[in-house]
This record gives sequence, structure tokens and C-alpha cells, in this order.
Amino acid sequence: MVTTIEPGAPVMTLINIFTVAPERQQELVDLLDNATEEVMRHRPGFVSANIHASLDGTHVANYAQWRSEEDFKAMLADPVAQEHMRAAGAMAEFEPVVYRVASSHHA
Amino acid sequence: MVTTIEPGAPVMTLINIFTVAPERQQELVDLLDNATEEVMRHRPGFVSANIHASLDGTHVANYAQWRSEEDFKAMLADPVAQEHMRAAGAMAEFEPVVYRVASSHHA
Repeated sequence: MVTTIEPGAPVMTLINIFTVAPERQQELVDLLDNATEEVMRHRPGFVSANIHASLDGTHVANYAQWRSEEDFKAMLADPVAQEHMRAAGAMAEFEPVVYRVASSHHA
Repeated sequence: MVTTIEPGAPVMTLINIFTVAPERQQELVDLLDNATEEVMRHRPGFVSANIHASLDGTHVANYAQWRSEEDFKAMLADPVAQEHMRAAGAMAEFEPVVYRVASSHHA
């Protein structure tokens, strides 16, 4: 499966930018991978998550798609998901923001 | 054409998060759409750009792919591109970060 980005697709997009110490970047990527595979991926409305590591080591970004904002909020209220998010919060600051795709451009 | 996200794809990813006053969010989306269509899209190594508008009005995100970091940096040095970026900077704070895709997860 491959994630696609398209205006009008029936998903909402969560972009969560984590600011992390470079020496802990890989540990944070591993934590997000595990949390996604073990918990988020099985929650109703989950579509996809793509974990990105900045080349300079200072950031990790999660580009995630959920069927609806309600599904995403239900996951946020899940105690097991909250435990994973607390672990991520212990090693990085993060700011999750919910978006719609406004436009796409290609070469 | 549709943007795809895949670990190992021969692209680098730029995620640029803009913080904007909600009453200017649409103006910023329009500015980024125009700059992308008129300038960035025609530069060597441009692959795709996807402009996202946050549901709460406070952010705009550009999820963009370039063939290489060198191509992206060459665009940054272009005076016409710089003019568009100054216009965006006049209405929003932004933080561009260059990433690789570390992992993908699907439902």
C-alpha cells in the first residue's frame, strides 16, 4: 500500500511535528513506529501514517490520515494511545495540527 | 497525477509549517498556490507540492517533494522564488524542514 495525497479525498490529515535532540531522533522514530503498529493502526478510521526523520536530526514529522476528525479524537481518548503519547512527550515537544488538503501541484 | 509517500523513493521531502492569522489563511493558501504554479513547479528537481489548510484556520502546511536537497537549495537562491517567500513571510511565520521518509504504516 502507498499513501496518496489528493484534494477532496475522504480523509483528514494530521501533521504532527516533533522537535527532538538529534541523539534521540532514532529512538523517537522507533517509538512512533511501535505505537502506530501496536495501537493507532488498529483504531477505527485509521488510514495511514508516515514517519519522517529530518536530515539535520532535530525533527520528526508524522504525516497521518484518518477517516474523520471524530475517529482521530476517539483515538486520542484511548488510554493505551495516551500512554504512547506520554512516552513521546517525554523525549520531544510536539504540535499536532489537523488539516484538509487545499491543493496539489506537480512538475 | 497524485503525490505518493514511500520510504526509499528518490525524493527528499520538505515540510513547511506556516503559522498565520485565521483571517489571512486563505490569502496565504492563494499566495503559495500562485508561487508554486508560477515559479517552483518549473524549477529543476521539483516533484510535487501539496498545500494544506488547518481546520482551525491557524496554520498552513506545504508538503513538498524535490528530487534532491541540492535542487531545493538552488530554488531557494532564485531571486523570483525569494520574492514569493518574502511575501509569504510578511503574512506568516514559517519553518521549513527537510526530511526523509523513515517508515509507512497502513490500516
